[in-house]
Amino acid sequence: MATPDADDPGLLTPAETSLLTDQYELAMAASYFRRGMNEPAVFELSVRHLPPNRRWLMTAGLGPALAMIEQMRFGPGELDYLRSLRFGEPFLEFLAGHRFSGDVYAIPEGTVVFQGEPLVRVTGTLIEAQLLETLLLNQVNFQTAIATKAARIVLAIGGGTPDRNRRLLDFSARRDHGVDAAMKVARAAAIAGAGGTSNVAAARRYGLQPVGTMAHSYVMSFEREEDAFVAFLEDSPENAVLLVDTYDAITGVRRAIAAARTTGVRLKGVRIDSGDLLSLSRAARRLLDEAGMPEVAIIASGDLEEGRIAALVRADAPIDLWGVGTDLGTSRDSPAVGGVYKLVADMPVPGRWRSTFKTSPAKATMPGPKQVFRRSAGGVITGDVVALADESQDGRPLLVPVVRAGRRVESESLEQMRERAAAELDSLPAPLRSLDAKEPAEPYPVIASERLRELNERALAGEDIEMPA
Amino acid sequence: MATPDADDPGLLTPAETSLLTDQYELAMAASYFRRGMNEPAVFELSVRHLPPNRRWLMTAGLGPALAMIEQMRFGPGELDYLRSLRFGEPFLEFLAGHRFSGDVYAIPEGTVVFQGEPLVRVTGTLIEAQLLETLLLNQVNFQTAIATKAARIVLAIGGGTPDRNRRLLDFSARRDHGVDAAMKVARAAAIAGAGGTSNVAAARRYGLQPVGTMAHSYVMSFEREEDAFVAFLEDSPENAVLLVDTYDAITGVRRAIAAARTTGVRLKGVRIDSGDLLSLSRAARRLLDEAGMPEVAIIASGDLEEGRIAALVRADAPIDLWGVGTDLGTSRDSPAVGGVYKLVADMPVPGRWRSTFKTSPAKATMPGPKQVFRRSAGGVITGDVVALADESQDGRPLLVPVVRAGRRVESESLEQMRERAAAELDSLPAPLRSLDAKEPAEPYPVIASERLRELNERALAGEDIEMPA
Repeated sequence: MATPDADDPGLLTPAETSLLTDQYELAMAASYFRRGMNEPAVFELSVRHLPPNRRWLMTAGLGPALAMIEQMRFGPGELDYLRSLRFGEPFLEFLAGHRFSGDVYAIPEGTVVFQGEPLVRVTGTLIEAQLLETLLLNQVNFQTAIATKAARIVLAIGGGTPDRNRRLLDFSARRDHGVDAAMKVARAAAIAGAGGTSNVAAARRYGLQPVGTMAHSYVMSFEREEDAFVAFLEDSPENAVLLVDTYDAITGVRRAIAAARTTGVRLKGVRIDSGDLLSLSRAARRLLDEAGMPEVAIIASGDLEEGRIAALVRADAPIDLWGVGTDLGTSRDSPAVGGVYKLVADMPVPGRWRSTFKTSPAKATMPGPKQVFRRSAGGVITGDVVALADESQDGRPLLVPVVRAGRRVESESLEQMRERAAAELDSLPAPLRSLDAKEPAEPYPVIASERLRELNERALAGEDIEMPA
Repeated sequence: MATPDADDPGLLTPAETSLLTDQYELAMAASYFRRGMNEPAVFELSVRHLPPNRRWLMTAGLGPALAMIEQMRFGPGELDYLRSLRFGEPFLEFLAGHRFSGDVYAIPEGTVVFQGEPLVRVTGTLIEAQLLETLLLNQVNFQTAIATKAARIVLAIGGGTPDRNRRLLDFSARRDHGVDAAMKVARAAAIAGAGGTSNVAAARRYGLQPVGTMAHSYVMSFEREEDAFVAFLEDSPENAVLLVDTYDAITGVRRAIAAARTTGVRLKGVRIDSGDLLSLSRAARRLLDEAGMPEVAIIASGDLEEGRIAALVRADAPIDLWGVGTDLGTSRDSPAVGGVYKLVADMPVPGRWRSTFKTSPAKATMPGPKQVFRRSAGGVITGDVVALADESQDGRPLLVPVVRAGRRVESESLEQMRERAAAELDSLPAPLRSLDAKEPAEPYPVIASERLRELNERALAGEDIEMPA
């Protein structure tokens, strides 16, 4: 057993993710195991209330979560640690052979969803379905928060037009909450429509476009700014973006133009990281156009978020690419999505589902395995019906099979998720595109089906409700 | 080279952390390398402005960051990927042999710090010091945000008394931003004074107390709540904490008392996760005391943060332990610390440091390698002086050597960091203990030394300033 070390880097091996779980999951599993309570069960992940400043969420995080769950193993080191916590030998033996072997239905990544909708539905034995709770929530909650934030920024960049795709750049690695966050923020932002990331590890792992320029310190390492620009263009001709605001942005743009001429390297872009981005981008555009370089992109960065971007877009700032760091990487105005994972049905008698529920004030969940049906008209979504999983309703069912008997079924490419996300943003009704969630608007209708409502009333009245399996 | 896979779990090996860097770090390094610009340089990590709702920060994240930096290697897979991005062979060969071999001074974890103070000072060759920027910031920024949040919660629990230690429990794993965040939130919270974590992987890796009870779904899996309680006490006698609010919290407490009597298991605690925590905790305390169980702890949880905790503490709610999830794990009201990493001195002429600076509006950094001296009177801190590193000033120097020639020097135990953090909170002047950062108060004095001010003025006037090495 490894000795605890305050200086441990904290990187997890796949086996260790089996312990990335709340202690109570294991305590409950041990009790279920001891009592032979391992009958089939259905759990659902849903978001009961939308977080502040949000009228919808964009799903993300499912793929990495399912990959971790598929690989989840309790290795000898993990079992030794659990032994030290006094878990019993028979349970540890059970864990040693444990593999998730259940089924998962889920709403695919890059889909717009609303409060009260099940995003993931897990059917398995009680223990295996219980044991994946923490990891599933850890991945889906935060990546959904980030994809939602990224989608809002992408909408701001478009300013109501479809001209928004791939113009957001993820510059967040230094403010993300750790290395896993840095990987997944890049991925979630890409799903929502970002065109590149500064994070090289994420670019590699997820096949994203790595992007970057230089830091102010690079420019300062040369006697003169013009020397720095010439050097960088000579050394990185395929990456010819210059940071122009180390001293004075306008002078910087002039020097960037001169450096391109001196070196003969085709300048790709200039980045402005401070100051009045509207007037500076206009002045930069004018200088570049006058120099016969209309194709050179202007990249803005520096404490940007959707509100400031929307204002610059409304003012017609000639900014082509938007580098966003802190606000994207932490979803600063709404950093948490409160998804929960609840038992909705169990099977105390073989072959018959029993719907379950709880009645704690303000925390009620609807019983039974569910599906979401989404209706649209003229390419715009008009309302969702949350129904029982075996119902047929008008509209497109959102939850699809993603895991069968513990194995992924047809996983998607990131490109498919990006196309879905773009279509989802196009299908939003106008009031839901507004970035100001405080602006009054009719709420998007999410209603329960008649059968679900009836089931819920019977459950609230204390009835045990059985359903065919 | 691995094929990009949208379903990759995204866990990093130590080698891959070499690519957990912004693309521009590598582009700059390649240019420095090509030009033989690898002279000594000094970079400092500092926070120019305190984040919203904060009057001070508690440092954290240094240990894991330095451990990753010490282990950083560019392996064959990483080099192949960089080759595909068109980095040149000589530079890739250089990276293959790259090891950080510089020196680091830093303010130890668990220290209270203020705006404008260097938290970490890195001296190395220009390339090696540049290459660790992103990873260092990724770890220190967010863990400092979390330790600060945890420290605020710990102060709220104490309500102005020293009775606050180890009464916070980290319940955040499901809302943290990924698996690395879940590990480091547990660690940062422990430094600030938390007594346990629900996260088993973090408890194992960092030697923390794993804590937990059961979920509502466990209770619901039994016919009757009393059956669930009896079963759990029988199966987890060493972990005898019962969640009492699945149906009705007061009835739940009665049943918990009965279950303890039935089983003969000594009840350790009851957890209340919803409802009016003041009245419920009072009623629970009364019932437990009447049952002759005054030692049974009452644990509160459910959307807690320091404001709500402070109100409950002021109202004398008999709550012994506080489980905090979302707000602790995301530092929800202030999820980002804006630390930056800036070149403060370089050495274009061997043997002579030259202080560097930049003059972009609102982003000025003070030039030169620095030290922070902290003064106190009667056990209370009274003001900090930021001085040049070679100055002698009254007060305790906060930056200490932590890495020499690439190797950690005397690392600390988590226990040492916890003791420091507790002493730091004790040394805060009363206005800085207030949790309402909007309340008017004299700002804590952080001043630049005379020599630093003079240096800064000369630098702003455009002078190159040399200093002995």
